[in-house]
Amino acid sequence: MRATIMPRAHEVRIDNVPDATIIEPTDALIRVTRACICGSDLWPYNGGPNVEGQRMGHEAVGVVEDVGSGVQTIRRGQVVIMPFANSDGSCMFCEEGLQTACIHVDFFGNGKLDGAQAEAMRIPYADGTLYPLDVGEDDALMPSLLTLSDVMGTGHHAAVTARVRPGGPVAVVGDGAVGICGVIAAKRLGAEQIIILGRHADRIALAREFGATDVVSERGDEGIARVRELTGGFGVQSVLECVGTEQAMGTCMAIVRAGGAVGRVGVPHYEAIKGAQQMFYRNVIVAGGPAPTRAYIDELLPDVMEGRIDPGRVFDRTVGLDGVPDGYRAMNDREALKVLIRP
Amino acid sequence: MRATIMPRAHEVRIDNVPDATIIEPTDALIRVTRACICGSDLWPYNGGPNVEGQRMGHEAVGVVEDVGSGVQTIRRGQVVIMPFANSDGSCMFCEEGLQTACIHVDFFGNGKLDGAQAEAMRIPYADGTLYPLDVGEDDALMPSLLTLSDVMGTGHHAAVTARVRPGGPVAVVGDGAVGICGVIAAKRLGAEQIIILGRHADRIALAREFGATDVVSERGDEGIARVRELTGGFGVQSVLECVGTEQAMGTCMAIVRAGGAVGRVGVPHYEAIKGAQQMFYRNVIVAGGPAPTRAYIDELLPDVMEGRIDPGRVFDRTVGLDGVPDGYRAMNDREALKVLIRP
Repeated sequence: MRATIMPRAHEVRIDNVPDATIIEPTDALIRVTRACICGSDLWPYNGGPNVEGQRMGHEAVGVVEDVGSGVQTIRRGQVVIMPFANSDGSCMFCEEGLQTACIHVDFFGNGKLDGAQAEAMRIPYADGTLYPLDVGEDDALMPSLLTLSDVMGTGHHAAVTARVRPGGPVAVVGDGAVGICGVIAAKRLGAEQIIILGRHADRIALAREFGATDVVSERGDEGIARVRELTGGFGVQSVLECVGTEQAMGTCMAIVRAGGAVGRVGVPHYEAIKGAQQMFYRNVIVAGGPAPTRAYIDELLPDVMEGRIDPGRVFDRTVGLDGVPDGYRAMNDREALKVLIRP
Repeated sequence: MRATIMPRAHEVRIDNVPDATIIEPTDALIRVTRACICGSDLWPYNGGPNVEGQRMGHEAVGVVEDVGSGVQTIRRGQVVIMPFANSDGSCMFCEEGLQTACIHVDFFGNGKLDGAQAEAMRIPYADGTLYPLDVGEDDALMPSLLTLSDVMGTGHHAAVTARVRPGGPVAVVGDGAVGICGVIAAKRLGAEQIIILGRHADRIALAREFGATDVVSERGDEGIARVRELTGGFGVQSVLECVGTEQAMGTCMAIVRAGGAVGRVGVPHYEAIKGAQQMFYRNVIVAGGPAPTRAYIDELLPDVMEGRIDPGRVFDRTVGLDGVPDGYRAMNDREALKVLIRP
């Protein structure tokens, strides 16, 4: 079968690899019908740590082709959302709805598990991992359904961990696809003032359509001053960190109001959270991490199915597997916001 | 009048100072009937920053002697709890119950406001700050009522911000008076397993009486391993940081379980929270800060009045004003847990 490999930074290629197969009795095999490229895929692309022969991609919708003898609920022929991490569905963390801390958690496309930018995948712990849908594999809602695998669930996690509540002012730091889904999530949870910090005109325009009320395109101290100005000098109740750099996190800590919360979903490329004293004296909460998207599907799916949210609009380009290398380039050059793949 | 002054580290004396008086129309004047020495008073005592002529003390119960012309609800003769910070009672933060972020907040005994280890005090924003009680000034419950000024409210804040919930395992890092009040708070909120990390036999004994189920006296890696062992290898849902050192915070971050929370109430003597990546990948929450004890009195007072909690037992020595310097010494030498003052 064909799969996307990133042997080293700035090199993405489509290779023939051994067919995905059932190994454990709890596995399923899926044919990938939709996948996509994630902003976090650009970290290794730009020189982050690479694993030799790493299969890329961790977001997929697919059709179940086969299941192991121990699989109880997932059946052949089902159309399923594959969250970006596997989870056993039965441990204490899965029961609490934090599947990304499952005692058997592993992440797709991490160099060990199969990647989603491929024709097929082996899915460990199929019952706990896959989420069956009641739609055909080419349903018109497929782009939005695919976002429940990661990007929309991740934006939602940023909003939840930043404690967005009706009325409270919100800031979204970052105008990538996660940030834009953060805007959708904040709006959905009742935020009235939603400030997006970003500087790409097309993304900002989309964020505005989704509910952003204010745009701050200045960076650093100037941007911080702008947000304070927009919030009566107090700063923001809920800050969604959707970038992952130390600078972005510094901005979050500077714009959050006393008693407010920063929800981090950008993969952190920093070792320490600075300003521990200011954070303390102002009773600021820092939370977030890898989103338990498996848990959030229950809540978000009805809104997708009934058209109340349309996160699939973050995809502004569609490619086949052969187009994946250029898809990486286009996202890295900020030419595309997020690339959908039809393998 | 007489008041406690700490002109420099390791020097505490009782001086004659100008009598406290009403300055602003919103002020009240209280005669201090009970005060105490806080663990945080030991930071300047041991060489932390000192303010020339600083009046010490920020915990008091007193009797209202006079009120300014703008005071609406507080009346002469009332017995009142004085939380450790003043608050206007009307700003957005006060309305949210975060009085320690009040737009007019200031802290007693900070070098600017009067200190509580004195005969009398001027109380700014009397209506928003003081909490009237329905007891006589020498009520038998006075030690416990005094703890609602700071130490019990602070232990409660640690438990609230660490999201203690019924059943969830809790660890309390630190066996000072705040840590012991943290045990009371955790028990009160329904925790079943409460692990206290400390090594003073008498304090541990008191913590056990209040509900601590396990004691870890090892420090560093050994202590961390012990806590993990006591929690099935997973770590603790809610960690109450009641020390304020970098080492203690490091222990908290190492023993908190995935999806758990660290509630910090120890005044932090570190600049950054280390382990930002592990914290992220494990979805750990860090919260806490100066407790809004004014808000918590509503919730805690009935439990004190009806005898369900008895936090006044943290006081193991009582002195008059003349005994305050030796009280500092005794607390600093770990000879006394917490010293009550009857000025």
